[in-house]
Amino acid sequence: MYKKLASGLIVSCQAAEGEVFHGLGLMRYMAKAAKAGGAAGIRALADEIPSIREETDLPVIGLVKKKYEGSEVYITPTRREADVLLETGCDVIAIDATARPRPQGETTESLFSYIKKAAPGIAVMADCDTLESALVADKIGFDYAGTTMRGYTRETAGIGIPDYAFLKEFCGALRHAKPIAEGGIWEAGQLKKVLECKPYAVVIGTAITRPADITARFTKIMAEMRG
Amino acid sequence: MYKKLASGLIVSCQAAEGEVFHGLGLMRYMAKAAKAGGAAGIRALADEIPSIREETDLPVIGLVKKKYEGSEVYITPTRREADVLLETGCDVIAIDATARPRPQGETTESLFSYIKKAAPGIAVMADCDTLESALVADKIGFDYAGTTMRGYTRETAGIGIPDYAFLKEFCGALRHAKPIAEGGIWEAGQLKKVLECKPYAVVIGTAITRPADITARFTKIMAEMRG
Repeated sequence: MYKKLASGLIVSCQAAEGEVFHGLGLMRYMAKAAKAGGAAGIRALADEIPSIREETDLPVIGLVKKKYEGSEVYITPTRREADVLLETGCDVIAIDATARPRPQGETTESLFSYIKKAAPGIAVMADCDTLESALVADKIGFDYAGTTMRGYTRETAGIGIPDYAFLKEFCGALRHAKPIAEGGIWEAGQLKKVLECKPYAVVIGTAITRPADITARFTKIMAEMRG
Repeated sequence: MYKKLASGLIVSCQAAEGEVFHGLGLMRYMAKAAKAGGAAGIRALADEIPSIREETDLPVIGLVKKKYEGSEVYITPTRREADVLLETGCDVIAIDATARPRPQGETTESLFSYIKKAAPGIAVMADCDTLESALVADKIGFDYAGTTMRGYTRETAGIGIPDYAFLKEFCGALRHAKPIAEGGIWEAGQLKKVLECKPYAVVIGTAITRPADITARFTKIMAEMRG
């Protein structure tokens, strides 16, 4: 597992509620395409993992997106979502690891321990937004830490991603967790700059598996140039 | 029709034989995503047009890819493929308009006339590779001329695309046919430079609807940087 993801591209294949491809059962084909293109792993929502497994044998990082009243954490917020992921047989479980309070009195540390106790062989990935959150995750013992939430929390809103200076610090600071660059990579030049920061692996999602967003990015440019 | 394509993005949604998505019936969803992202039109293979029509009301440029012994022309080479396209009710029929000989004694002009006689209301797009081929198409009376074949014929092999200098000349030289930029657009900066050449519309395909190719483009960079 570790070996397979090393220096590899993890393709995020998600169609959550509200997205054009939601509920169409298409992520298995996105995963198939990712594999054909040389991907080392897949990041996917729990519902889609069984069908993705039918198409590929790549390692899968699973997550559940779920909103709870009173908490801003929506990536695998509680053990209820972790239980769903444990059932899928994914190789890694990704959970929010920002400093924001989780629902139901859960903490990042308690959720991490719960998962590791339930399935000692499973790896856990911390979806971080700041260096502090990454250092906490590293200390807790997460196997991977990603920059997933950078730019998507109140504390980091408005920060341009990929945030290379942050990524470089992030990759250098982790002692135990393997650093994964995730978020905002659209173009070749961005990927090259990300790789210069020496992450263990890279996640790209929207630029590969969300054709509506890719189209919108181009049509926005056309509208702007028309004036 | 004309009005709808003007200054718009046409998203090519194709999964020909040999491609990862071939035969999976996915192009209807790619077209749906393209529409959601603000596309002005779709370019598609004949087989996929009926299902694409079920998902969107966008104008469709249809083509058939078919190889004949003894000819290098494979985009709607003869009236047999044109007949198939006429049945689909597409708005525009795209045909190869390079100087290469077509199969079965057909010529670009004879095929154009055949289509216009069979369906006077239909528009025809010339898929060109050189300025000469575009000028011939313009004189014949094609409604649209695209740079589709630039870089893909023996005469133009090895030319980097998008070929901006060529595109600018192409757009300036056409008197009747509306110029369409097609081929090689992957990134925002390329699209901006293409738009500066003032094409009537732009086609983007692979960078939006071929996730295996998009993945491969990124994994190639990662392999190169690993050394």
